[in-house]
Amino acid sequence: MPSVLIIGAGLAGSLLSIYLARRGFDVNVFEARGDMRRESMSAGRSINLALSDRGIAALREVGMDEYMLAEAVPMTGRMIHSPDGQTRLLPYSGRSGEYINSVSRAGLNIALMNEAEKYPNVQIVFNERCVDFDTKRGEAAFASGRTMRAGTVIATDGAGSAVRKAMMNGGVERFEFSQSWLDHGYKELHIPPGDSGSFLLEKNALHIWPRRRFMMIALPNFDGSFTCTLFLAHKSDSAEEPAFDQLTSEDAVREFFEREFADAVPLMPTLVEDFFANPTGNLGTIKCFPWSIGGRSLLIGDSAHAIVPFYGQGMNCSFEDVRVFDQLVEEHGDDWETVFDAYGTLRKGNTDAIADMAVENFYEMRDAVADPVFVRKRELETTLEQTYADYFSKYSMVTFREDLPYSVAKEKGNAQDALLMEICSKTEDVSSLDLADVRERLSQI
Amino acid sequence: MPSVLIIGAGLAGSLLSIYLARRGFDVNVFEARGDMRRESMSAGRSINLALSDRGIAALREVGMDEYMLAEAVPMTGRMIHSPDGQTRLLPYSGRSGEYINSVSRAGLNIALMNEAEKYPNVQIVFNERCVDFDTKRGEAAFASGRTMRAGTVIATDGAGSAVRKAMMNGGVERFEFSQSWLDHGYKELHIPPGDSGSFLLEKNALHIWPRRRFMMIALPNFDGSFTCTLFLAHKSDSAEEPAFDQLTSEDAVREFFEREFADAVPLMPTLVEDFFANPTGNLGTIKCFPWSIGGRSLLIGDSAHAIVPFYGQGMNCSFEDVRVFDQLVEEHGDDWETVFDAYGTLRKGNTDAIADMAVENFYEMRDAVADPVFVRKRELETTLEQTYADYFSKYSMVTFREDLPYSVAKEKGNAQDALLMEICSKTEDVSSLDLADVRERLSQI
Repeated sequence: MPSVLIIGAGLAGSLLSIYLARRGFDVNVFEARGDMRRESMSAGRSINLALSDRGIAALREVGMDEYMLAEAVPMTGRMIHSPDGQTRLLPYSGRSGEYINSVSRAGLNIALMNEAEKYPNVQIVFNERCVDFDTKRGEAAFASGRTMRAGTVIATDGAGSAVRKAMMNGGVERFEFSQSWLDHGYKELHIPPGDSGSFLLEKNALHIWPRRRFMMIALPNFDGSFTCTLFLAHKSDSAEEPAFDQLTSEDAVREFFEREFADAVPLMPTLVEDFFANPTGNLGTIKCFPWSIGGRSLLIGDSAHAIVPFYGQGMNCSFEDVRVFDQLVEEHGDDWETVFDAYGTLRKGNTDAIADMAVENFYEMRDAVADPVFVRKRELETTLEQTYADYFSKYSMVTFREDLPYSVAKEKGNAQDALLMEICSKTEDVSSLDLADVRERLSQI
Repeated sequence: MPSVLIIGAGLAGSLLSIYLARRGFDVNVFEARGDMRRESMSAGRSINLALSDRGIAALREVGMDEYMLAEAVPMTGRMIHSPDGQTRLLPYSGRSGEYINSVSRAGLNIALMNEAEKYPNVQIVFNERCVDFDTKRGEAAFASGRTMRAGTVIATDGAGSAVRKAMMNGGVERFEFSQSWLDHGYKELHIPPGDSGSFLLEKNALHIWPRRRFMMIALPNFDGSFTCTLFLAHKSDSAEEPAFDQLTSEDAVREFFEREFADAVPLMPTLVEDFFANPTGNLGTIKCFPWSIGGRSLLIGDSAHAIVPFYGQGMNCSFEDVRVFDQLVEEHGDDWETVFDAYGTLRKGNTDAIADMAVENFYEMRDAVADPVFVRKRELETTLEQTYADYFSKYSMVTFREDLPYSVAKEKGNAQDALLMEICSKTEDVSSLDLADVRERLSQI
């Protein structure tokens, strides 16, 4: 019997196995899919992800940060594409060194699995899909018919977690649970590299085509390509309102993209093929509690808190989960019940906060970046960050301050935002503001 | 094939079957339990319920209101029992004729089933527990192995609805769902009648022993007895904090009741036996959406929106569901998809509102009725209602205004409450207030 059984060798599970191996535990990781290092597979997940400070901090502890950043593409700001094709860069921060990094999901996952398997006390078993969990006995059941117990079971089996479903379906009395969905879905599309791997859009930016009721984004890949994601309503309320349910013909797709994203269309030679070949994904938020059953099992990562991607924090939050968890293992060893209780108490408010901020940021990215008051506010914040080393916007607190809990970033950030939006609604020219006065008012929050 | 299959012959299902029978539909009702008219059974549900205007309005349409009220005990206000044994009546309304009615759940359910079976086009089948629902085919599966289809299926199978679970477990894409629980549970206890069926507490009141962190209530039954319900935390945070997990010995129970509810203990001869014989119930809120799948199925009542009992609106809301639904059948006939869509659109905001108000009222009943500002506020509201025929407190809007949607009662009521609490926090003597001025300020809300 291994001392820890991890369900799922995705990003969170693979990183967790490294952390636990370093603490000397025998770790078995059971993964539903095949080994992505041997088989090419469509993961059904986003191709690239934004790695930022919380995620980097967790990788650093196991010596993986520099390795990963070597293959990442830094993104220093949001490049806003207007309908007329004009672009404007809104930096993420007024400070140099504060940027996010586009990384390959598969590349990162493979690197983590390779690292994990360097430890003799880690074993990853593939093609074992967990389908049920006996919450009383702490026993996981797999589609193969195999069952498995361990000193404890940690479920990193993602948003559709079988362990969480067992907790929900009677395994845990008074289990708090919610799932909610945006009216919008998403579809991934592709911009290939230019000649000899050149980038056909500005390389070091996260590109956004904000169109109020919908938007497209594009993140650079290391090979010079970009992965685009269209966020659009599933269903149309009216004939004028674009939605996935209206884009059913090649002509409709082409016409929609040429009208809305004219500057991108020439860069997307496989647009129509991609549009019909790739699935339309859903955007959901899942919250639940408690995450653990005594010392028998614990949910970590998306299994405990699936969030929408609009703050670029899904992976970063899950990696932070692992780092916080490890600190508690350092403190309490394998007294799992104590570790799990402390972890839930410490972490729940923070994962709720990032879940809420991620939904709010959808509206910000879609609507607000096209709003002049918001653009002025970002300008002001950039100036504030350039001028005052100790001023951090909400975005910066979430993205670049791994020392700050998400819940603090949310509360303080919302108060700052309200004040700055008010200030910027009253002036057309941000440079005319008395910056010291603004700083003083912010410090009173 | 019946034109309508109803899952569950509880209060909502039985009333719905009458409404549909009157519209000429062939109705089959499949009920999980045996026939309560033939077998004595512990329903695992509360023994009595507060029937108020929304419920009465729905009964009136099928001619059942006067019959039911003949066996009800009117409750004109909350009788507050202080720790020192003093009592004080807080009327529910300043107007005569505005009171709530304690009715027997079983008695009402039996009356509704009897009425339903007067219609030749209604058939109630007992001991058929629905365990699954094929959301694509619209087919219900029962524990007996039987399966059943119909023109449409309406699920009134309560908070644990099997139909809703099937919708949740993949039957409906992007199904919105939440379940949340209070830290408090409940336990039913008993005060028997006095000599020759006399009432040992004031008959025409809902009795409350508010003790801030917990409370007991008692509702009169037609036979002179009272059903008491203790609402108490499941788990204790500290040694001083009473909770169910601390009341594990007869001595502890007796000591707790004698300390907290001294005036009630002499009336409860079977207190200790009841305490250990009766289960401790959970208090949960369930919300979900959509409630329907095309025209194939619809959730009505607790299956769609389980709420906590603190506004006395669970049954009243479900009965109002049925009345609203019937109005849409009148308009659209058996175009079920249209009826179901319109029903969801019309009703969801209102059931969310009463769900939220019911949770809020728990804190009001437990904490606020022991708060002098709140007591003054109730006093002021009573005076306002006595003086102004068109003034209604939030409680009155919810309870006595079946013409007013719950969502309106919530919004307007909260604004009124905030203003009146502010006014009452600034005076010790409500009778010194300028009533016309208060009325004027209220009318500006």
